[in-house]
Amino acid sequence: MKVAERTVGVIELINKLGDEPFSKEDLDLLASIGSQMAVILENARLFREMEKRVNQVYNLMELSTILNSTLQQKQVLQRAMEAATRLMGTEVGSLLVLDQETQELVFEVALGEKGKKVKEIRLKLGEGIAGWVAQSGEPLLVPDVRKDPRHYRKADKISHFVTKNMLCVPVKVKNQVIGVLQAVNKLHDEPFAKEDLDLFAALANQVAIAIENARLYEEMKGTFLSTAEALAEAIEKRDPYTGGHTRRVRKYCLAMAKHLSLSAQEKESLRLAAILHDIGKIGVRDDILRKKGKLTNREFAAMKEHPRVGAEIMAHIKQLQEVIPGIRHHQERNDGMGYPDGLRDGDIPLVARIIAVADTFDAMTTDRPYRKKRGEEETVDEIRRCIGSQFDEGVTKAFLKAHEAGEIRKIMEEVSA
Amino acid sequence: MKVAERTVGVIELINKLGDEPFSKEDLDLLASIGSQMAVILENARLFREMEKRVNQVYNLMELSTILNSTLQQKQVLQRAMEAATRLMGTEVGSLLVLDQETQELVFEVALGEKGKKVKEIRLKLGEGIAGWVAQSGEPLLVPDVRKDPRHYRKADKISHFVTKNMLCVPVKVKNQVIGVLQAVNKLHDEPFAKEDLDLFAALANQVAIAIENARLYEEMKGTFLSTAEALAEAIEKRDPYTGGHTRRVRKYCLAMAKHLSLSAQEKESLRLAAILHDIGKIGVRDDILRKKGKLTNREFAAMKEHPRVGAEIMAHIKQLQEVIPGIRHHQERNDGMGYPDGLRDGDIPLVARIIAVADTFDAMTTDRPYRKKRGEEETVDEIRRCIGSQFDEGVTKAFLKAHEAGEIRKIMEEVSA
Repeated sequence: MKVAERTVGVIELINKLGDEPFSKEDLDLLASIGSQMAVILENARLFREMEKRVNQVYNLMELSTILNSTLQQKQVLQRAMEAATRLMGTEVGSLLVLDQETQELVFEVALGEKGKKVKEIRLKLGEGIAGWVAQSGEPLLVPDVRKDPRHYRKADKISHFVTKNMLCVPVKVKNQVIGVLQAVNKLHDEPFAKEDLDLFAALANQVAIAIENARLYEEMKGTFLSTAEALAEAIEKRDPYTGGHTRRVRKYCLAMAKHLSLSAQEKESLRLAAILHDIGKIGVRDDILRKKGKLTNREFAAMKEHPRVGAEIMAHIKQLQEVIPGIRHHQERNDGMGYPDGLRDGDIPLVARIIAVADTFDAMTTDRPYRKKRGEEETVDEIRRCIGSQFDEGVTKAFLKAHEAGEIRKIMEEVSA
Repeated sequence: MKVAERTVGVIELINKLGDEPFSKEDLDLLASIGSQMAVILENARLFREMEKRVNQVYNLMELSTILNSTLQQKQVLQRAMEAATRLMGTEVGSLLVLDQETQELVFEVALGEKGKKVKEIRLKLGEGIAGWVAQSGEPLLVPDVRKDPRHYRKADKISHFVTKNMLCVPVKVKNQVIGVLQAVNKLHDEPFAKEDLDLFAALANQVAIAIENARLYEEMKGTFLSTAEALAEAIEKRDPYTGGHTRRVRKYCLAMAKHLSLSAQEKESLRLAAILHDIGKIGVRDDILRKKGKLTNREFAAMKEHPRVGAEIMAHIKQLQEVIPGIRHHQERNDGMGYPDGLRDGDIPLVARIIAVADTFDAMTTDRPYRKKRGEEETVDEIRRCIGSQFDEGVTKAFLKAHEAGEIRKIMEEVSA
C-alpha cells in the first residue's frame, strides 16, 4: 500500500478458498483495494496529527493564560518552567535568565529534585547548548545530547542528571535575548519532532511577554518604594538624631515578618507603613525637632502629633487604606497608654504593633539628644520586659527570633547612622 | 451519497453508451462508488474544518500576544476591539466596560466611523444584549438581532448602524464580570457557528488578563504618583505661602505638554519632576522658609540650594535618572543667570524649561510674604516679555497656547491655595 510512492503497509492473502489458485485479476483487485486503504490510512494519520496539533495549541493557550495571570516575577519564572515541562512532555524543564551585567546565564528555576543543585551554575554566552542559543538567538533541537560537542557536561555532573535530548529556545523581549527556555528528555523515549520546536518557540514568546510585564510592574513598584523612602529619609534628616532610622525600622519590620505568618498583602502594607511611619514629623517645628535638651510638656505634645499628621498626609490615597493605620498607630501601647488613640491589645493593627517594636528598638540603640544609646543585648532584654505592657507578645517573640537568628545585628551593622 | 444517513451530494449518470439500458447491477455499482465518494468528501470536510480551527487558534495566540504586549490600559482596550474584529471576521467589534460605581456598561471602544457616536451610550445591567450577558455571565450567539427582544435598538438609532447578528461574551476577572466583548455582523453574510462562540470566549479570557494586568500596573503607578505628591505637598506646607503650588505646577506643566510634542516617556518624566521640583526645600530651615520679610543675601543663598538638594535626595534612584535633571535645573534661566549651574538655552533640559515657566507663573499669581499676587493677564504679559531672557521660546509659546485655550485659568480656579 503506497501513498505518494511511500509504502504505508502490506496486505497479505493466504490460501484461497476452493481449489482455484490466485489469478492475475485477484492481484489487480487486491492492489486496487490496497491503494484505497492506503489513502484511508494516510487520511486518518493526517487527521490524528492535525488533532494533536489542535490540542497542543489549546494547551499552549491555557499555559499562556496561567503564565500571564500574575505580575509576580518569581511566579512567572516558576510557571514558565512548569509550562515547558507540561507542554513538551519532558522529564524536566529549566529557564536560564541572562544577567545583564555579567552577561551570564543563570538557572533561575529547574524543576525536579535533581534540579536544585543546577541553580549554582552560571554559563557564559556561547558556553553550553543554552549559551549557544542565547548567543545565536536561534532555537535548537538536540536529538542526542551526547553527540553534541556544545553540551556543557559539568551541569550533569553536578546534578547527577543524565541529559539525553533537549529543546532549547531563546526568550526575547524586543528582539533582545533575555534568557533561554529548555525542555529536557522527552518522556517515553519518543524523539522530539520539528513541530515540537515551533510549539516550544511559541511558548517562549508567551514567557517573554509574561517576564517583561512582571519586570515592568516590579520596576514601577521598586521606583515607588525607593522614592517614598528617599522622601521619608529627607524628612527624617531634619531631625539630626535619626540618621538611617527609617531604613533600619523598615528592615527590622521585614525581618520580624519572616517569623510571623503574614499574607503577601500584609507584608506589602508593613513595608510601606514602616517607610512612612515618621513622615508626620514634617509637621513638627524645627525648634522642637532640633531641641537638644528635654522637651517641655507642650513641646512633647506637639511631637506626639506626628502619627496623626502622618496618617492625614496619606488619608486621601485610596490604595493606601491598609497602610495608614500602621502609620497612625505605631505609637500605641498594649496597655492603652500610647497615642494618639489609646488603643489596647488586639485593637492595635498588627502592622502598627510590629512597627512599635522595631521603632523602639532603633530609638534605644541610637544616640538621642537626651541620652546615650544602649547596647543590643541590654535593649533586647528591655524589649522582652515590656511584653504585655508596651508590646504585643506574638510580635515581640518574632522580634526575639529574628534577634536570635542574628538578623537584627546584621541590619544594625549594615545601616549605620 | 450519504454519511451517517446525511445526504452530502448526488451522482447522476445520463445516457448509457451502447444500446443497453441501465441495469440493477449498474445501480448497485454506482451506489457503492457513491458511498466511497461520500466518505472521501466527508473526510476532506472534517480535515478542512480542523485546519480552520488550527488557524483560528493560531490567530488567537497571535492576538493574545499583541494584547498582552502592553500595560497601557487604553492600548489594551483598543487592541481588544481590533482582535475581536479580526478573529471573528466581523464588520465591527466593541468592548463595554462595567463602571463599578454606577454598575453601568460603557462603550469603551467601538471601531469604525459609525462607532464614535455609540460611545455616549450607557447600558444598565440587564439592558440590551450586552446588559443581559453582563448580568448572566453567559456568552451569547444572536443569529438574528431583529428577532431578539433583548436588543437595545437605541444604539442603532444613534449610530445609524444596522446590527444584524452578534457574538457577545462576558469578560471576567476572578469570576467577576468586568465587561462585555462584542463582535457584530459577520462578513460575507455567513452565519456564526457554535465554535465561533467558544473561540470568542477564549479571546475574552485573554482580554480579561490583559485588562487586569494593565489595571494593576496603572494602579501601582497611580499609588506611586499620589504618594509622591502627598509627600511633596506635606513638604510644601512647611512654607505657609505655597498652598497648592505643587499641584498647580504639575497641572500647568501637563497643560503645556499638550502643545509640545513630547514622547510618552518625556511626559511621565515631566509629571514626576513637576511633583518633586521643590522637595529640596526640606533642607531649608524654618526661620528662612517662614520669614515674613525680605531674605538677606545669606538666607537667599540657602534658599537657592533647594534644586540641588532636591536632586540629591533622588540621586540614588536609578529609574529616576530622567526626572532628576528636571528637579535640579528648574531655576535655570535661558540667559545663563539662573541657578544652580548657570546653564543656558538648549543646555537646560526640556523638562526643566517647562517647569520654570509653570513655577514662575504660579509664584506670581499667588501671594508671597514680600508682595501681593498679580492678575492672570498681567502675569502672562510678563512671562511673554521674558522669552529669551528667562524662558525658552518654544516652551513659553506652549504656555501661551494653553492660556489662550483657557486651560491655565481652569487650573487656577480648580486648585485654590
